Amino acid sequence: MKSFSIEEIAVLVNGEQIGNCNDQINAPEQIENAIKGNITFIGSSKYVGLWEKSNASLALVYEGIPILPGEGKAFIKVKNPDLAMAVLLDAFEPEPPFFETDIHPTAVIDKTVKLGKGCKVGANSYIGRNVVLGDNVTIYPNVSVFDDCTIGNETVIWSGTVIRERSKIGSHCIFHSNVSIGSDGFGYRPSEDGRGLVKIKHIGNVVIGNGVEVGSNSCIDRGKFSSTILGDGCKIDNLVQIGHNSVLGKCCIMAGNSGLAGSVTLGDGVIIGGSASIKDHVTIHSGAKVGAGSGVIADVQAGKSVVGYPACDSREKMKQWVALRKLGRN
Amino acid sequence: MKSFSIEEIAVLVNGEQIGNCNDQINAPEQIENAIKGNITFIGSSKYVGLWEKSNASLALVYEGIPILPGEGKAFIKVKNPDLAMAVLLDAFEPEPPFFETDIHPTAVIDKTVKLGKGCKVGANSYIGRNVVLGDNVTIYPNVSVFDDCTIGNETVIWSGTVIRERSKIGSHCIFHSNVSIGSDGFGYRPSEDGRGLVKIKHIGNVVIGNGVEVGSNSCIDRGKFSSTILGDGCKIDNLVQIGHNSVLGKCCIMAGNSGLAGSVTLGDGVIIGGSASIKDHVTIHSGAKVGAGSGVIADVQAGKSVVGYPACDSREKMKQWVALRKLGRN
Amino acid sequence: MKSFSIEEIAVLVNGEQIGNCNDQINAPEQIENAIKGNITFIGSSKYVGLWEKSNASLALVYEGIPILPGEGKAFIKVKNPDLAMAVLLDAFEPEPPFFETDIHPTAVIDKTVKLGKGCKVGANSYIGRNVVLGDNVTIYPNVSVFDDCTIGNETVIWSGTVIRERSKIGSHCIFHSNVSIGSDGFGYRPSEDGRGLVKIKHIGNVVIGNGVEVGSNSCIDRGKFSSTILGDGCKIDNLVQIGHNSVLGKCCIMAGNSGLAGSVTLGDGVIIGGSASIKDHVTIHSGAKVGAGSGVIADVQAGKSVVGYPACDSREKMKQWVALRKLGRN
Repeated sequence: MKSFSIEEIAVLVNGEQIGNCNDQINAPEQIENAIKGNITFIGSSKYVGLWEKSNASLALVYEGIPILPGEGKAFIKVKNPDLAMAVLLDAFEPEPPFFETDIHPTAVIDKTVKLGKGCKVGANSYIGRNVVLGDNVTIYPNVSVFDDCTIGNETVIWSGTVIRERSKIGSHCIFHSNVSIGSDGFGYRPSEDGRGLVKIKHIGNVVIGNGVEVGSNSCIDRGKFSSTILGDGCKIDNLVQIGHNSVLGKCCIMAGNSGLAGSVTLGDGVIIGGSASIKDHVTIHSGAKVGAGSGVIADVQAGKSVVGYPACDSREKMKQWVALRKLGRN
Repeated sequence: MKSFSIEEIAVLVNGEQIGNCNDQINAPEQIENAIKGNITFIGSSKYVGLWEKSNASLALVYEGIPILPGEGKAFIKVKNPDLAMAVLLDAFEPEPPFFETDIHPTAVIDKTVKLGKGCKVGANSYIGRNVVLGDNVTIYPNVSVFDDCTIGNETVIWSGTVIRERSKIGSHCIFHSNVSIGSDGFGYRPSEDGRGLVKIKHIGNVVIGNGVEVGSNSCIDRGKFSSTILGDGCKIDNLVQIGHNSVLGKCCIMAGNSGLAGSVTLGDGVIIGGSASIKDHVTIHSGAKVGAGSGVIADVQAGKSVVGYPACDSREKMKQWVALRKLGRN
Repeated sequence: MKSFSIEEIAVLVNGEQIGNCNDQINAPEQIENAIKGNITFIGSSKYVGLWEKSNASLALVYEGIPILPGEGKAFIKVKNPDLAMAVLLDAFEPEPPFFETDIHPTAVIDKTVKLGKGCKVGANSYIGRNVVLGDNVTIYPNVSVFDDCTIGNETVIWSGTVIRERSKIGSHCIFHSNVSIGSDGFGYRPSEDGRGLVKIKHIGNVVIGNGVEVGSNSCIDRGKFSSTILGDGCKIDNLVQIGHNSVLGKCCIMAGNSGLAGSVTLGDGVIIGGSASIKDHVTIHSGAKVGAGSGVIADVQAGKSVVGYPACDSREKMKQWVALRKLGRN
């Protein structure tokens, strides 16, 4: 377990120390649950009342809050508590899981695979023909990577994740547990007798940029032909569905349980709220925001916020909700 | 296959036998599909009409229904057919999958792992450093459990499930297939140049009480710091998302496809309907119910029922829906 | 990589060649991204303007569009561009992932398993006692199939998928990555002291017909008793939940993130839109359609279209939405 002196933490977060305490700080903790040796956070005045009873040794405090630490405890006052907290979490981050050997003997790695320097492949993982891994790629146990994929430097793939053939994955990406990349898209045509459905083959692939993170149990389908594309820096939460031939620009955010049907286009910096779903062939332009739980059935202009089902301008939808509430009370 | 005489079943469910039948009873089945040797259920009068044509040998019948079994068939009349059915399902439960050896030779178990008495670990599973398993823990094939986890007595983990570092799991829990426990929460801050997103490290963990069941492909993220907590007896369905630092009290129920964003608090006995989603930092107090498909954006008082998007009191929402229906017909 | 001459493609899609080009055609690509050697599609007049700048060598063109290919490029004019594209995708489909040996030595296959002719089982997969595989079944790496399952001819199971005991799977099915079949349904009863929940055992199974496709990370729970049933030709997208004892007729379609609670009945050819959810014990009769994002709480008649939450007739719901929009603007 890592630990720091209060002086070391003050330097790390570039803050001003107030009060004194000799405790070595070993973990961040919420103000109610903190024990001696913990650091906690007072980012707004609503936490002030909890401080006196807290057993924390130290708190990061927003400089605008007029509060003193009291006897035997200390504060570090900072301009930006959120940033300071992020820096602190970096400092306290534990080591990742232990690999006894870089390439576990039970991993099945085709002889044609190219492994960069410093790659780790965990127990019982499978890597198919002609896969190319960059440097320092980490593949945890029970992962499957299929033929002809490329995976960039420093990318991390957690257990249960499956990456299908011909996917191109950038560097510094993270795939959490049980992610499914590159499965066939969902497309059928009526059979000739009109009584059944015939599968449309999906021969495209998935192309993912650098710095992309994909949450647990999310799915990104391959293109029917051509590619399903995620731009650099996209952040995808858990249980998200991205349909075939969707194209996401840079730094898009999709929250948990949201979904894109096929051939959806997102510009740069688009934010999709949790459980929202977007109809096929819709374009959501750069900087637009879709509220949680919304259903988007038409294009959204750049920078606009929409919400509801069917989604419309957020302010207009608020008025509709207010009107409906009044109507229900008549 | 297990089988019982009608007399044995009458004793099991504490019911009164009516009519006689010598068939040995080998399985429960729905009244329309039942064959000779099956037991079926007549819990309400709507099933009475199907009995005459049913080939079942036996039925569990609610004692308030005035019906007779007819020639060569039998009834067992009971006060509480749901309870009797549950008892019967316990009796007919088949053996769990067969383990040829308790610890399969292809399982990769770090030498520091502590295994309690009677533990079973299936083929190709992975258990990392310093994991502690209680007694009679069953880990099916292709499971991954990472460093420093503890798992209590009698807990069962099905295939494809991934449990990340430092998770604390209670006793008598069940994790169904492809569950993801302890992945990083979803949190980013703007980069200094304002043009990208920087990952906030998630160094907390997941703490799960006793008797908790988690459905297939559900996700429970670790805390940013501190813990994401599920109290004793929580029952989580399939494809459910529980965001970082959410805290669930005892015996909460979350139905399929529902989700909690980050830092949601549920009291004891809260029921979340299917596909409902709860905004971050919301508190839903004990005994409250959230209807299926709802979007909850504000705290819910103890014992209250809310529904809709945005969710409000169920009766108020019903009035709104009625008013809207009228409005559409004008 | 497969390639075809323009003449060969004209024969394949039964179209009329216009213009000449000697390029060998090696892949389909979208009109904006196509390079020399690619074939693209002009299915409607909105793509006409992009053709002149496209680097594609060839396009499949709907015969009703009055456009000429220009110098050194060619068209194949067809009556039905969607069908022609499907035929072309079949032709260009790459080989599936390579198996060095049919049965990988790291696969754990119980000695009682019956393998049909031509079966392939990938690395680190597990097949339990008394499982019966038909001919030419393909099981990719890291799959788990439990005791007493049967799987029909030509069925393909991708990595991470888990199939629990006693499931009956038809022929020509596809299970994509991380699918969970046959986990326990979600059912509890209050404990005798009223303070907890007791698990109801689920001793039924899952029965899946022929030609069924199940998308990545979808879940189909076993029956409480009797079976959860999917009829021939059902197509299930990613992240779909099908609760215990639901019964789907033939050729039903369920789009991504949709869900059926327990004991839902779908007739033949029912279409469930993305993110829609259906209440337990509801029946949706043959040919009915449920719009994306809907919440269905009552039976739906054959052939009817419903939408919204609570779902009602699509035209009625449209009127409600129009009325609500007006109301918000007053």
